[in-house]
Amino acid sequence: MQSSRSKPCSCPSLKLREVASMYFTMVAAFLVILVVALQGSAPRQSDFPYKVPLDPQGLLELSWNVSYPEQAVHFQLLIRELQFGLLFGMSDRGEFENADLAVLWSDGHNSYFGDAWSDAKGQLHMDSQQDYQLLGARRAPEGLYLLFRRAFSTCDPKDYLIEDGTVHLIYGILEKPVRSLQAINISALHGGLQRVQLLKPNISIPELPRDMKTMEITAPDVVIPSQETTYWCYMAELPEGFPKHHIIMYEPVVTAGNEALVHHMEVFQCAAQFDSFPRYNGPCDSKMKPDRLNYCRHVLAAWAMGAQAFYYPEEAGLAFGGPGSSRYLRLEIHYHNPLVFKGRRDSSGIRLYYTATLRPYDAGIMELGLVYTPVMAIPPGEDSFVLTGYCTDKCTQLALPAAGIRIFASQLHTHLAGRKVVTVLSRDGRERQVVNADGHYSPHFQEIRMLKEVVAVFPGDELITTCTYNTEDRSRATVGGFGILEEMCVNYVHYYPQTQLELCKSAVDPGYLHRYFNLVNRFNDEEICMCPQVSVPQQFYSIPWNTFNRDVLKSLYGFAPISMHCNKSSAVRFPGEWEKQPLPSITERLREPGPRCPPAPGPQPAAPAPLPLGQLRR
Amino acid sequence: MQSSRSKPCSCPSLKLREVASMYFTMVAAFLVILVVALQGSAPRQSDFPYKVPLDPQGLLELSWNVSYPEQAVHFQLLIRELQFGLLFGMSDRGEFENADLAVLWSDGHNSYFGDAWSDAKGQLHMDSQQDYQLLGARRAPEGLYLLFRRAFSTCDPKDYLIEDGTVHLIYGILEKPVRSLQAINISALHGGLQRVQLLKPNISIPELPRDMKTMEITAPDVVIPSQETTYWCYMAELPEGFPKHHIIMYEPVVTAGNEALVHHMEVFQCAAQFDSFPRYNGPCDSKMKPDRLNYCRHVLAAWAMGAQAFYYPEEAGLAFGGPGSSRYLRLEIHYHNPLVFKGRRDSSGIRLYYTATLRPYDAGIMELGLVYTPVMAIPPGEDSFVLTGYCTDKCTQLALPAAGIRIFASQLHTHLAGRKVVTVLSRDGRERQVVNADGHYSPHFQEIRMLKEVVAVFPGDELITTCTYNTEDRSRATVGGFGILEEMCVNYVHYYPQTQLELCKSAVDPGYLHRYFNLVNRFNDEEICMCPQVSVPQQFYSIPWNTFNRDVLKSLYGFAPISMHCNKSSAVRFPGEWEKQPLPSITERLREPGPRCPPAPGPQPAAPAPLPLGQLRR
Repeated sequence: MQSSRSKPCSCPSLKLREVASMYFTMVAAFLVILVVALQGSAPRQSDFPYKVPLDPQGLLELSWNVSYPEQAVHFQLLIRELQFGLLFGMSDRGEFENADLAVLWSDGHNSYFGDAWSDAKGQLHMDSQQDYQLLGARRAPEGLYLLFRRAFSTCDPKDYLIEDGTVHLIYGILEKPVRSLQAINISALHGGLQRVQLLKPNISIPELPRDMKTMEITAPDVVIPSQETTYWCYMAELPEGFPKHHIIMYEPVVTAGNEALVHHMEVFQCAAQFDSFPRYNGPCDSKMKPDRLNYCRHVLAAWAMGAQAFYYPEEAGLAFGGPGSSRYLRLEIHYHNPLVFKGRRDSSGIRLYYTATLRPYDAGIMELGLVYTPVMAIPPGEDSFVLTGYCTDKCTQLALPAAGIRIFASQLHTHLAGRKVVTVLSRDGRERQVVNADGHYSPHFQEIRMLKEVVAVFPGDELITTCTYNTEDRSRATVGGFGILEEMCVNYVHYYPQTQLELCKSAVDPGYLHRYFNLVNRFNDEEICMCPQVSVPQQFYSIPWNTFNRDVLKSLYGFAPISMHCNKSSAVRFPGEWEKQPLPSITERLREPGPRCPPAPGPQPAAPAPLPLGQLRR
Repeated sequence: MQSSRSKPCSCPSLKLREVASMYFTMVAAFLVILVVALQGSAPRQSDFPYKVPLDPQGLLELSWNVSYPEQAVHFQLLIRELQFGLLFGMSDRGEFENADLAVLWSDGHNSYFGDAWSDAKGQLHMDSQQDYQLLGARRAPEGLYLLFRRAFSTCDPKDYLIEDGTVHLIYGILEKPVRSLQAINISALHGGLQRVQLLKPNISIPELPRDMKTMEITAPDVVIPSQETTYWCYMAELPEGFPKHHIIMYEPVVTAGNEALVHHMEVFQCAAQFDSFPRYNGPCDSKMKPDRLNYCRHVLAAWAMGAQAFYYPEEAGLAFGGPGSSRYLRLEIHYHNPLVFKGRRDSSGIRLYYTATLRPYDAGIMELGLVYTPVMAIPPGEDSFVLTGYCTDKCTQLALPAAGIRIFASQLHTHLAGRKVVTVLSRDGRERQVVNADGHYSPHFQEIRMLKEVVAVFPGDELITTCTYNTEDRSRATVGGFGILEEMCVNYVHYYPQTQLELCKSAVDPGYLHRYFNLVNRFNDEEICMCPQVSVPQQFYSIPWNTFNRDVLKSLYGFAPISMHCNKSSAVRFPGEWEKQPLPSITERLREPGPRCPPAPGPQPAAPAPLPLGQLRR
C-alpha cells in the first residue's frame, strides 16, 4: 500500500552514481561548447549594454546585461593580463568575508572555474550549489573573456541576493598558482571593490526631437591631482540671453583612458539671486575657491560610474535658461585615484541634450526625508539605527495638484553613517509601493536612478523615508546637520509636473525631545538638567548611552508628534499649522518580497488529480 | 559566443508541451498505482505509529509516521462516513484562513484530490506547487483510507512549514457535491481543529527490566458530564509502606470509544507534609472537592491526545514511594465533549511501569522561566509581546554538579495569552542550543515532550526562556500571577541526576519598575504617583497605554537588573546575593534555521569545472 509514486522529475533523488556519470557527461559537453565558444565571433556590444572597470588600472572590465524575464544577469568579464586566475563576486558592503564568489584558478597546469563562498574568516569553500554558470571563455588580443550567468535569487543561503540598488562587487587577482580553491589566501590577494547598480531599469527610450542640441559641460584640461580623492570644481556659463529650454537627456563624457578614475560627476545650477559668479577651475576644497560657488547647489545632472545616459520621460524636461534662472553652472568631478597616478590629463564632464521645443511639463525636484536638525540623532555604537522622515497627507493635500505628480527618478542621500535608504508611498494608512530602496546604500555612490516604475502621488498620500545608520566606530552621538560627521536622510525625487512644493520633511517635536532628556536624566540617577542654555547636540553628547537610553530614544521617535517642513522653498512654508503634527499611522505594511527561488521540482503540475473512485457517496 | 550550455537536468526549463505530456503520463502511472493500492492489504499498524481522532465523533482518524531522513510526514487518513469529500490541512493556530490544505472533492460524478490554500478571506485556491502528494486511496469496510505525503518544508510560500512543537490540524467535511475547488465555501463547512505534535522524536526505546510491574491509576466508572469542558479529579493511593521505586515508563489507558473525548490526563503526587488525604472522585471545580487536594501538584506523569508512551532514559527513573514522599496521588482528566454527549461512561487513566531495581539516577523536574509576580506584565492590545525569564550562570554555578545534568524532556506552560515558548541554552554569552521550542504553542495542549536530543547543562550555563503573548482581546494589562487571566512563563524540564535546584527563575527588579511608573507618569503629563500603597497590578492597570509606554516597558525588561529565584524548594533560596543581578548578556545568537528547501535543480554538481585553457599565464 505504501508504494511511493514515481516522481515526474528525477532530479532531487539522483543517486550518487548517476550524479557522477552525469558529471562526466557534462564535462564532455562542456568542452564541446567551449570549443564552439572559442571559435565564435567577438561578443556584440549591444549584448552587454552596461560596462564598468573593476580596478583602478582598468585591467578588469565588467560588462553585463539584465534579463527580467529570466530573472538573471549575464556577465562578461574581460581580464587584460591574466596571471593565475581571479575572484569575482558580491558581498553585503564590499568585504571579502561572507562573500559570494566566482573563482577562476590555475594549479599551473589546468584551469578551473567554480562557484564559491567565503566564510566569516575569509576562508574559501566550494559552493554545494553552483549558481555562477560558466557559459564560455575566449581568448582575444585584448585578454581573456569569461562569460557567465547568475540568477538574481538562488535560494542558496551561501549566495548573495541580487536586488535593486547598489551592489558591492569585489575582485581579487591570483598572482601565483594554487593547488585548490581552499588554498587561496584571501588576505594576501591584490583586490578591491567596485559599486554598481546591477539591476538597471528596463526603460524604453523616449523619441528625441529633431531640434535637439547638445552642450558639453566639461572641465578643460585638468591634471588629475596625484592623491586618492579629489573633488574638482569648474564653473561654466550659458550664453547671455539664453532662453528657457528643456534638458531631455544627458550622458557622461569621459576622457579615454580615465574610465577607472572618474568616479562621479554632477552639474549644479547657481542661485538666481546673484547676477554673476567668478570663473574657477580647481579643487573644490582649495582655499582659492571663491565662496560664492557654495551658492551653486541646484542639481541639473548627475552621473556615477556604471550609469548610462539619463532620459527624461517624454512628457517632461528639466527647465534651464530663461529669466529667473542663473546662467552659471558648476561642474563637480570626483576623481578616485588610489594608485596615485601622476600627470594624468582629463577633460571629462557631462553632455546635455536640450530642446527649445518645450515639452508639456517642467520636471521638478522635491526633497523628502528629515529636516537638517540636531533633534534627530543616532546613538554611538549602533550597527543599524533607523530614523524616519515623513511627508504627511496634510502637506500633499495642500501642495499637490488633484491629478497628482509622477516620480520618475530618485537620488538617495545621507552622510557617512548611512547604510540603507528607502521611501515608501502610503495611502489611507496602507503602504502601497516602494518609491526607491537601496538595502546596500553607500554614501560614496549617490546616483540619480531612473525608477523601474513611475510612481503616481496624489493629494493625501504620504511619503515615508527611512534611513539606517551604522555608528559602531563612533563614541558619541551623531546628530542631524550639514557637517560631514553629522547626518542627513534625504531622497531627492525627480517628478513632473513641477509644483511649488520643494521640501516635504519632518523632525521630532523639540518639546517631546526635551521630555526625553529629562526622563533619561532621572532614570539614570544623573543630576536633573533643565538647563535650556545647553544645546541639543550637547545634551545628546552628555547622555550615558546604554540599551535603555537607546531604546527609549527609538520609542520616542516612533511615538512623539513631529514638526513638518512643508515648504515652497527651503525657508517658506505653505500656510497652515505644522508643529506637533501626529505621526502618520500605518495599519498595513508592504510585505518584504520573499526571495524568488527557481521552482523546486514539484511532485506534480498544479492541476487536480482525478481519482478512480467514482462517486464518493455510496 | 553566448551559446548557453546544456543543463544537466532539464526540469527548470521544461517547455509547456513537455509538461503537458508528462502530466498525462503521470496520470496514467497514477491510475496503475491506485489500482495496486486498491488491491493491497490493510496498512500495518507499525507503518503509522501515531494516531489521533480529528473530530469529536471520531469519524476522521489520522495516523502518521515521520521520516527524518526524507524530511517528510506520511499521513493515513481514515474517513468513516465519506460524503462529498473533505479538507485536511494545517494553519498557524487552527484558523481556516491562510491555511495549507489537502482537498478531496467530488462533483457528484468524479472525485479529485489536490493541494490547495485558503487566502485571508477563506477563499480556496489550487496551489501552483502540489506538495501534498497522494500515494494511494483504498476502500475498506470501516471507510476510505487516503494515503499522502508531505515534506516538512516545501519553500512554497503558500505552504505551512512543519516544525517541532504543536501543529494545528484542521478538517472540514463536504456535505454536498461541488463543481470545483474554488466553489467550496469554507464558512459553511462542518469542521474543526485538532492539535498534535506531528514531529515526534525518533527515540530508541530503552530496554525494560524483567522485574517491571505496572499500576493503573484510572478513574473508576466516571459518567462524563454532558458539558464541553470537564476537569475530573480522582484520588488514588499507594499501598502502605510502599518502598521507593523508579517509574521508568507510563502510557495512557483510554476507554474504547472515548478516544475523541479524553483530551489530556495528569497524575500528581501529593505533598508529604500531610499524613493523609481524603478520597475523591468528581469534578475538580466542584464545591464538594476537599481543599487539601490543592496540595497534590507534583507531576508524576502527563499525557495529552496524540502522545504515546513516555520512557525515561535508561540511566534514570522517577522516584515514587518510600519515606519522605506522600502515598497519595491525584489523577486529573480533561474531558473535551463539545457535542455534549450524555451518559458516556469512562475509566481512563494512566498505566505506570515501575521497578524496584533502582536505576543509577533519580530524575528531577526543574522550573525555568519567570517568577509568578505581577512585576512582569503585558500591555493590552498586543499581538506578540515577549517576556523573558533567566536561569543565570551564577545559579547554575552554585547548584549544578560539575558533571552537569541531562535534560531529556520538557513541558512548556503559560496561561491563556501564551502563543510561543522557547528555552535556549547559552554558554559564555553565546547561545548554543534550543532546549525546547514551540512556535505554535497553545495553552490548551501542554504535553510533556521527549526532546529529540538530550541537552547537557553544566555549571555556569544560562537557560533563557522566552514567552510570546497575545492580548489583543484584553483592555487592561495582564500581570504575572497564578490566576487564569494572569500569566506565567514556565518550562518544566525533566532531567537527571536530580539536584537540589527546583526553581531557577527571574523577574525584573521592583525598584527599576518603580522608576518606570514614575517616568511614564511624568512623560504623559499625569499626576505623579509616588504612592507606595498602590499595588503593582493597580499601577499597571492605571497606565494610559500607547506605543511609547509599551515600548519603554519593553526597553525596561531588556535593560533593568533582575531578581533571581535560585531555589532549593519554592521558598528556600540557595545562599548568595540574588537581588539586582545583571541580565545575562548574549553576544552571539543562534541563527534561525532557514527553511530547508528541496534542492533546486542545480546547474552543475558542486565540483570545479576544468577549463580547456591550459596554463593561464602566457
